[in-house]
Amino acid sequence: MSKIFAFSIRKDEEPYLKEWAAAHPAVEVDFTDKLLTPETASLAKGADGVVVYQQLDYTPETLQALADLGITKMSLRNVGVDNIDMDKAKELGFEITNVPVYSPNAIAEHAAIQTARVLRQDKVLDEKIAKGDLRWAPTIGREVRDQTVGVIGTGHIGQVYMQIMEGFGAKVIAYDAFKNPELEKKGYYVDSLDDLYKQADVVSLHVPALKDTINMINDDTIAKMKDDVVLVNVSRGALVDTDAVVRALDSGKLFGFVMDTYEDEVGIFNEDWQGKDFPDARLKDLIDRPNVLVTPHTAFYTTHAVRNMVVKAFDNNLALVEGNTPETPVEVK
Amino acid sequence: MSKIFAFSIRKDEEPYLKEWAAAHPAVEVDFTDKLLTPETASLAKGADGVVVYQQLDYTPETLQALADLGITKMSLRNVGVDNIDMDKAKELGFEITNVPVYSPNAIAEHAAIQTARVLRQDKVLDEKIAKGDLRWAPTIGREVRDQTVGVIGTGHIGQVYMQIMEGFGAKVIAYDAFKNPELEKKGYYVDSLDDLYKQADVVSLHVPALKDTINMINDDTIAKMKDDVVLVNVSRGALVDTDAVVRALDSGKLFGFVMDTYEDEVGIFNEDWQGKDFPDARLKDLIDRPNVLVTPHTAFYTTHAVRNMVVKAFDNNLALVEGNTPETPVEVK
Ligand SMILES: NC(=O)c1ccc[n+]([C@@H]2O[C@H](COP(=O)([O-])OP(=O)(O)OC[C@H]3O[C@@H](n4cnc5c(N)ncnc54)[C@H](O)[C@@H]3O)[C@@H](O)[C@H]2O)c1
Ligand SMILES: NC(=O)c1ccc[n+]([C@@H]2O[C@H](COP(=O)([O-])OP(=O)(O)OC[C@H]3O[C@@H](n4cnc5c(N)ncnc54)[C@H](O)[C@@H]3O)[C@@H](O)[C@H]2O)c1
Repeated sequence: MSKIFAFSIRKDEEPYLKEWAAAHPAVEVDFTDKLLTPETASLAKGADGVVVYQQLDYTPETLQALADLGITKMSLRNVGVDNIDMDKAKELGFEITNVPVYSPNAIAEHAAIQTARVLRQDKVLDEKIAKGDLRWAPTIGREVRDQTVGVIGTGHIGQVYMQIMEGFGAKVIAYDAFKNPELEKKGYYVDSLDDLYKQADVVSLHVPALKDTINMINDDTIAKMKDDVVLVNVSRGALVDTDAVVRALDSGKLFGFVMDTYEDEVGIFNEDWQGKDFPDARLKDLIDRPNVLVTPHTAFYTTHAVRNMVVKAFDNNLALVEGNTPETPVEVK
Repeated sequence: MSKIFAFSIRKDEEPYLKEWAAAHPAVEVDFTDKLLTPETASLAKGADGVVVYQQLDYTPETLQALADLGITKMSLRNVGVDNIDMDKAKELGFEITNVPVYSPNAIAEHAAIQTARVLRQDKVLDEKIAKGDLRWAPTIGREVRDQTVGVIGTGHIGQVYMQIMEGFGAKVIAYDAFKNPELEKKGYYVDSLDDLYKQADVVSLHVPALKDTINMINDDTIAKMKDDVVLVNVSRGALVDTDAVVRALDSGKLFGFVMDTYEDEVGIFNEDWQGKDFPDARLKDLIDRPNVLVTPHTAFYTTHAVRNMVVKAFDNNLALVEGNTPETPVEVK
């Protein structure tokens, strides 16, 4: 009987782990809520493979501790592999998998909801209501259907965002360095980013952070946009020059800003700052603005996504354990 | 040259009034921000017709004051005519118009956004973020696409809501006492409300308040629904037995509740209660709950809707003034 052991299983992951285990009675499944470290590695003793997910580094010592137990098949429940010491992994003969796509909809839905909320001035309205001010004027909304929505990056997430915005009745235009033939046939693409900036009432970023895209939103590109534009970044903080965005919020050029990712988020997001000095004054200012919606990289965090992260990681690990080809292997080099 | 005078024009209506005036250079247009009363009626002196919108009653005295100026052509910028003394209006030979449909999307978009926010636990997350708690777990979202959305009432607003929910990828089912043939062909309708309650993860009301629909959501019907259902009422407060909803929120049967209309809203909504005793403890409790989103009948309040209310009312009034048939006359009886 094969055995798979999972580390740092959160409460919200447990049901999906149990669902997978029930569907695979021939596999022994065990887990802990502890992170994987050189010390905790021994919890996996007797297992043929491990399923993992953590911000913490997979250090040479951690990998060695697993290898000492005869475990070299490791399946991540997330995408990122930057925190794995690949040299050591290679030396020890590790086989690794990740889950590169778990739910584009999780992120696209979040982006769409937040876009609509900013257009609607919902934060202003909600704060009025919480204080007992139930007057609607002058907090008037803009309808999504009246907007031209410019989508930069038409990959997994961008495409779903386009579909949702069209459901609202918006006009959708798009730009991508590598055009999708289906979308091109349907006439979504404009010829250049400048064209998109000129036409869009909403600009939403769905590209990775690469040389060409880092700081693509800056003073110059914002100046090319329409007045009262809404900027949406649920992709990577580095795509945006945050100081330039603050200036554009101050000047009134931007109607609002949706931000799920922040250039300085590491070490700040997913922490509890209550009762402590908040570590980033610019971020605090953004959080407090009535026309800015900040979320701490939570766009991905849905039951659908979490289920896929768990189930796909276990599927991958079982493939490794049984000597089959996993769906999404990571190159160990 | 015809002259039309408008009462109680708000700041957000002015641009649309000016737009209409510019498009009709042959008509003299003037306005005030004052409500129409027996005293202010004289502001309209010399006009051929008036454009109006107010909660305040159109009393016999008010109507008489207008008639004394020779003005009996009155165009409402809203739907409701309950506050007009129809006997007096008839006696004085008034011709009246209203604007029955100004933007179904305004209401449907609001319903959709709020539905998604409840599913996503956004209120919990937003409150955490405002306090400096940037941890995402355990505030996990449900994706709209995973829901079966049950729409009760497939008229102007219900249809747009269906379309938005489908854009998200949700499964949409519907019930209406009078089926729309197009929607029926596409297979949306279930046979009974019981069927809808049995299947729906979201139940959204888009029917008028009539004998058959008043208190249609009550202890009995809620008991027929799935666990963790989200209830959405942006239609009429009276559709819902609010106490039954509170019980279902307390028991955990309801995952959340979207409420833009409230059975006791008259005299409470659109008022400022800051620094005063809040007049309704049940409403205050609902406002404060983390899984309830209350808005004070603001779903209609968009630039698109306001523009249509102004422009359509002026179009109607001009038709009356010029002796043509207005698009949406009100029967004066
Ligand atoms: N907020 C979150 O929780 C979260 C979760 C997952 C992913 N993301 C981010 O979302 C973004 C999009 O993810 P995805 O899964 O849709 O990726 P994807 O690879 O499917 O799509 C990216 C698209 O960007 C295009 N692109 C690449 N370089 C470009 C350039 N210079 N100009 C224009 N287009 C360019 C590609 O052609 C592709 O179509 C990524 O940055 C990812 O990191 C965020
Ligand atoms: N919150 C707001 O700001 C706001 C603004 C405008 C309208 N509304 C409300 O929204 C609701 C829907 O408005 P609309 O413009 O879509 O109306 P509509 O007349 O276009 O549609 C109503 C639908 O309900 C159906 N219906 C009637 N009785 C029914 C019954 N017993 N069971 C099932 N279906 C029944 C009708 O056949 C029709 O299809 C109304 O209650 C209206 O008052 C709210």
